[in-house]
Amino acid sequence: MIKIAVLGYGTVGSGVVEVIRTNEKVIDQRVGEELRIKYVLDLRDFPGDPVQDIITHNFEDILKDEEVKIVVEVMGGIEPAYTFVRQSLEAGKSVATSNKALVAKHGASLLKLAKEKNVNFLFEASVGGGIPILRPLHSSLTGDVIEEITGILNGTTNYMLTKMFYEGADYEEVLKEAQDNGYAERNPEADVEGYDACRKIAILSSIISGQQVDFEDIYCEGITKITVEDMKYAKAMGMTIKLLASCKRDGEKLNAMVAPFLLHREHPLFSINGVFNSIFVHGNMLGDAMFYGSGAGKLPTASAVVGDIVEEAKHLNRNLGVGWSEEKLALEDKKDVKRRFFVRMKGKKEDFEEKLTEEFGMLQYAKAEGVEGEFGFLTPVMPEGEYEKKAETFRDSILGMIRVEE
Amino acid sequence: MIKIAVLGYGTVGSGVVEVIRTNEKVIDQRVGEELRIKYVLDLRDFPGDPVQDIITHNFEDILKDEEVKIVVEVMGGIEPAYTFVRQSLEAGKSVATSNKALVAKHGASLLKLAKEKNVNFLFEASVGGGIPILRPLHSSLTGDVIEEITGILNGTTNYMLTKMFYEGADYEEVLKEAQDNGYAERNPEADVEGYDACRKIAILSSIISGQQVDFEDIYCEGITKITVEDMKYAKAMGMTIKLLASCKRDGEKLNAMVAPFLLHREHPLFSINGVFNSIFVHGNMLGDAMFYGSGAGKLPTASAVVGDIVEEAKHLNRNLGVGWSEEKLALEDKKDVKRRFFVRMKGKKEDFEEKLTEEFGMLQYAKAEGVEGEFGFLTPVMPEGEYEKKAETFRDSILGMIRVEE
Repeated sequence: MIKIAVLGYGTVGSGVVEVIRTNEKVIDQRVGEELRIKYVLDLRDFPGDPVQDIITHNFEDILKDEEVKIVVEVMGGIEPAYTFVRQSLEAGKSVATSNKALVAKHGASLLKLAKEKNVNFLFEASVGGGIPILRPLHSSLTGDVIEEITGILNGTTNYMLTKMFYEGADYEEVLKEAQDNGYAERNPEADVEGYDACRKIAILSSIISGQQVDFEDIYCEGITKITVEDMKYAKAMGMTIKLLASCKRDGEKLNAMVAPFLLHREHPLFSINGVFNSIFVHGNMLGDAMFYGSGAGKLPTASAVVGDIVEEAKHLNRNLGVGWSEEKLALEDKKDVKRRFFVRMKGKKEDFEEKLTEEFGMLQYAKAEGVEGEFGFLTPVMPEGEYEKKAETFRDSILGMIRVEE
Repeated sequence: MIKIAVLGYGTVGSGVVEVIRTNEKVIDQRVGEELRIKYVLDLRDFPGDPVQDIITHNFEDILKDEEVKIVVEVMGGIEPAYTFVRQSLEAGKSVATSNKALVAKHGASLLKLAKEKNVNFLFEASVGGGIPILRPLHSSLTGDVIEEITGILNGTTNYMLTKMFYEGADYEEVLKEAQDNGYAERNPEADVEGYDACRKIAILSSIISGQQVDFEDIYCEGITKITVEDMKYAKAMGMTIKLLASCKRDGEKLNAMVAPFLLHREHPLFSINGVFNSIFVHGNMLGDAMFYGSGAGKLPTASAVVGDIVEEAKHLNRNLGVGWSEEKLALEDKKDVKRRFFVRMKGKKEDFEEKLTEEFGMLQYAKAEGVEGEFGFLTPVMPEGEYEKKAETFRDSILGMIRVEE
């Protein structure tokens, strides 16, 4: 019998308990022996709950119990999660976590420690919820150089943008609705400013590069400035707007970014709607692939955590080789990354056309039904630094800019 | 250094050589030591080709060479592939293959042999080409009871159906075009009759059930009877027609089928177009997930084979536990599986309406623009056996039936 401990009995923690209890029989078959929860750590008591007899308030109980081979950290936040995970690994216990903040910040050192102790530190649920993506990258796409990972990694913002696109609703209205039905937090900053997606793409970037990518180094722009007019232009151009988190290889360097992007109808991520997440991968041999599913939610996230627990139970005392070095990766400067830009300007196209052509070359103009007193255009492909310089001339008239994903 | 041998220098075999040579550096890093091809087995010689010096015509050279730890079978067909794979495993060599016919027929016994010899027999490329699906099922979705796998598993037929749907082309015309540009074989039977997809869903069914599912037991219907009119009705109903290979849990039993299905616009497989493959999975905890990519082609398929080679190289002399028992699984009788059916009848709706309602209950009638002298209807949900009995009454007037995937 393999005994495990679950740190935190919140949404994901109670989901992990539910998954293990519901699917006990098949899980035991897959592990090859019985997998049982010995402790649940939480500050609260849960009288009447199935876990009432295994609740502990003291992490030391778990740490000192040699029977506990796997610790499941689903508390969230950096502390005390980091200390508990570190101590668990040092004590020779494997750890599974859904904590993206912890992995983005301390992943490299915790993976190193797990390797030293010949145990495992796995975190499939930290990116894309229930979607298997980290293990496929580590164990399946190993014949490829991964040239691109672009994901819709935040369900809340994708739900909001989908509503804005299909229903013409404005940002504030959609945010309120998302909050009312529980898709968005009362303080929605982590989602709408892109911080959540940013930590996830930092983890993916570290995995494909094999080096530490700090989320603070990734340019991150949320969806708070996306307007009804932007969506009208997108529609008129046969495109949509999605919050993309991407990491791309450009020669020897990687560049990474989180921002709203205009996407063409042919792009595989175009039709990913609602709270779903999807991750597009391009390998130099594989070509295009995509992974789709529930990026959040109690049971899908718990499903991914339990997948890690089973993998750890099957490989007790045998490190699986997941890891990246603590050496920090220098990302390509966003100013050097080439793409097209969609720009909205106030005024009449006729008054600007000559000057714009002089500055940008041939432009593709766009009109959107019901949008008056302004016009839009798509620039040619150019480095973002060059765009910024050229745009400076028109600063007072530019209403907004959205990058284009080809 | 780990030495491997490639059996067969056809499309996939030359792809495997290309992937390993192109990505040598990253592959060696992932394996942890150098991975090199020592032999390529083929009946032919390849003067001037990079492999000319490592070609052998004699399998015994490979079998007797103890340096060769991994044998890559990419010849296709049952014999001599089966004998070579069996002998390789018996000699303590791991085997990676893309050969779906071999796996569907002899998978259980070869997996058992690999386990006895403490080596591995992997076959990711046999289902879905470059798409990682078998390893995710085995190593990631292990917290779930898989309740459904439904895939577009054949690129040729999906290309043809896509053309028929979007361009209104007829079957013969599209088949000729697919043959002319190399998407379909001169003898297209394996694709258009569904045999290829059937072997793949047999493998997936065996994996999720843990028992042998014989492809001969799976009802298999191809796309040869799909007409321009069928597509017109599909469009009129806001649906499309796809060749689906599916395996679903219905209580204690599994049912499996390959057939053309009508799909609603909201179904995740609706928008999978062209030669791409996609596999939809529903887990009892995970909910819906989908895996998408190139289901065939030299390099995508080779990418999956190389992923298996790397996994085997990382786990030499350690069986990874992939397997299903040789005990045959009894599938649910197709007559007991409940669904809706779309039926086309010649004549006037008015002449049949009363009798149809008497037989089937309330029907949903469909009209398609430009289709004269006939009408269509959707039945309520009912077991296929019941549908067949009721349809018998109208046998002489029924032009065709297509199942509906809800």
